[in-house]
Amino acid sequence: MAHAPARSPLAPDRFPDVAPVAGVELAARACGVKYPDRLDLLLARFVEGTQAAGVLTRSKTASAPVLWCRRQLQHGRARALVVNAGNANAFTGKLGVGHVEATVDAASRTLGVPADQVFVASTGVIGEPLPADRLTDALPEMKSALRADLWEPAASAIMTTDTFPKAASRTCEIAGRSVTLSGIAKGSGMIAPDMATMLAFVFPDAALPASVLDALMRPAVDRTFNAITVDGDTSTSDTLLLFATGQAGHPVITDPKAHALGGFRRALEDLCRDLAHQVVRDGEGASKFVTIDVSGAVSRRAAKRIALSIANSPLVKTAISGEDANWGRIVMAVGKAGEEADRDRLAISIGGIAITQDGQLRHDYDEGPVARHMKGSEIDIAVDVGARDGRGRGRATVWTCDLSHGYVTINADYRS
Amino acid sequence: MAHAPARSPLAPDRFPDVAPVAGVELAARACGVKYPDRLDLLLARFVEGTQAAGVLTRSKTASAPVLWCRRQLQHGRARALVVNAGNANAFTGKLGVGHVEATVDAASRTLGVPADQVFVASTGVIGEPLPADRLTDALPEMKSALRADLWEPAASAIMTTDTFPKAASRTCEIAGRSVTLSGIAKGSGMIAPDMATMLAFVFPDAALPASVLDALMRPAVDRTFNAITVDGDTSTSDTLLLFATGQAGHPVITDPKAHALGGFRRALEDLCRDLAHQVVRDGEGASKFVTIDVSGAVSRRAAKRIALSIANSPLVKTAISGEDANWGRIVMAVGKAGEEADRDRLAISIGGIAITQDGQLRHDYDEGPVARHMKGSEIDIAVDVGARDGRGRGRATVWTCDLSHGYVTINADYRS
Repeated sequence: MAHAPARSPLAPDRFPDVAPVAGVELAARACGVKYPDRLDLLLARFVEGTQAAGVLTRSKTASAPVLWCRRQLQHGRARALVVNAGNANAFTGKLGVGHVEATVDAASRTLGVPADQVFVASTGVIGEPLPADRLTDALPEMKSALRADLWEPAASAIMTTDTFPKAASRTCEIAGRSVTLSGIAKGSGMIAPDMATMLAFVFPDAALPASVLDALMRPAVDRTFNAITVDGDTSTSDTLLLFATGQAGHPVITDPKAHALGGFRRALEDLCRDLAHQVVRDGEGASKFVTIDVSGAVSRRAAKRIALSIANSPLVKTAISGEDANWGRIVMAVGKAGEEADRDRLAISIGGIAITQDGQLRHDYDEGPVARHMKGSEIDIAVDVGARDGRGRGRATVWTCDLSHGYVTINADYRS
Repeated sequence: MAHAPARSPLAPDRFPDVAPVAGVELAARACGVKYPDRLDLLLARFVEGTQAAGVLTRSKTASAPVLWCRRQLQHGRARALVVNAGNANAFTGKLGVGHVEATVDAASRTLGVPADQVFVASTGVIGEPLPADRLTDALPEMKSALRADLWEPAASAIMTTDTFPKAASRTCEIAGRSVTLSGIAKGSGMIAPDMATMLAFVFPDAALPASVLDALMRPAVDRTFNAITVDGDTSTSDTLLLFATGQAGHPVITDPKAHALGGFRRALEDLCRDLAHQVVRDGEGASKFVTIDVSGAVSRRAAKRIALSIANSPLVKTAISGEDANWGRIVMAVGKAGEEADRDRLAISIGGIAITQDGQLRHDYDEGPVARHMKGSEIDIAVDVGARDGRGRGRATVWTCDLSHGYVTINADYRS
């Protein structure tokens, strides 16, 4: 990009307060992977004993770093994380595997940690060889710059087309001890569930084995990162990693269903939702943040499919961009989802205002208040699909943004 | 629409020569369903004994006319067709059913044909009551205007956001007699397989029972109308109907596998492909006609899913709009399709020029000729997904267009 794109109109006013996490140190550098003078490399060091869990893209053309992380997650021990922006090291064949190994080796030697406890992630252009020496050359100097409070540079160093750095922080209690979770994320295009196309790294100081982290993470991800979509495209590099440092001082908890983990579970989901919403708010060209609630479906899975059908419809998304309360396109998107829906009981509301009832437009429908809602930047769409006979208990919420001229402009010219 | 949109740059130079079909008469009128002074109503009368077959949208929120046609196709006899543009009579509840019945009744009385042999189709805005009296009032006058050669007004009367009328004509032989097939179609947005979002009507003068027509039509549709996509959205009104008048003078053929039908089968598929391509060439905002060939997949179905994943990817489509040979996004789209693909054997070419080989960029890749190809209006993408062990015999071709600023402009402002 010749110049940085304007900050998203949906961005938060300022970078949030992010608490340090005991056992996590960060450093960020501009090493020139693609763009000059821009932070593009993140190094994180974790205290010994840190446990890791994660979800990775299901793409059949996954990147070399994704394949590496998949293997390291088998044992779940972590001492370091290296992330670069500007080059995804995807579709780079054997060369790409070699570049992952070179990066891991350099981090291992520099920090004095086992190579198989170094995690890597890369994001950016697909199909170009990663200039791995620029990464490895920068690591020694980064080691001496490691600090606990560098969240904003860390979140900035992993950005690609993002217009603002994304981070969030939560606290909770486990067994009477205060636990901190802080996290960063990037992503603004190629965003769709399974996995949301992003990098996200969450660092709790809780003392939890990798298997427990994994069990707690999956339902949280299903309701947060896997419930957002910008354009329905899925990256070759999607990566969410959790690193639990175990420094909070509570006894290790080995049962993911333990009552003591209730607060942690809520804090983790809340943190993931916060980061996921920030990704949508930075959706390429986004001018509206859209919440879609579907109820009355035969299952949660059916509700989510219908909600994603609405959220991914180019016709719905362009109508929202044009501030047009075109609920007919919502009917279309419900219909194409292929899930059970009762055409004659479909109830659609926008901004809390009921538009349809019993399969047709309400007689008292006044488009005025809905039109006003459409002019705002937060759009709420609710659809009850009316499954009969008490089977309609399935509900789901997904979040997306509009499809605007900005999206086309950004993506018709990304590589240049 | 306040003014007619400019004719698509991909449109044919002129309306094609369309042969009359013995047993088919047409009339078109401007009856003011939505837009003043624009042809928006088509009446077709068929000779007694005409047989009908068709495919209709699989949408769970199908329109009232679709439900009516689905019922009439059970017996497969047809004497008339009434089509209006401007209002889809979809999501209109009991009122919509009544409007279909009123239209059918009026056509039945006007033409003196059984009501259950009158087919109807509507296209346009969803959720507004159809002004059926404007249709029924126009029918008597249209009856006296019925003629065999009104293909251009007929094709024009079914247009919505289309920028040019679409028709095609073919001839073939059955049992030594010449057979004519002529057809019209409309569609430019909300286009996706199952069913392609359009109306299409094909009129052969062959003597074929409805069951044979049905059997011949399905494979042809799979490779033509169901192999195009503009935006991945599926309409509530998709309708393809075939009306065979039996006037060609050959004996009735009752076996769809009969050798004598070889020429008809090819002519039908060729005609359907011609109409389907015209729909893509009128894709909303389209500036490029894109052909996507996928080979090396484990089945035809897998190949088609991968091809559609590429064709529906907003990132691929915006790159094409920007004339950017961004093959990395093709890799992404192959990966997200979820079908078997060998990352290390993926071979992509654009405009006949091999770009990747063995899972990475070719060493001799020269972007120059590919960049020149991208500047043209006909883009060819070929992908071999490299399934191993002789299992890679699945091939499929789909057609789409680019995603441009024009698409956003048209769809952000359609209802106004």
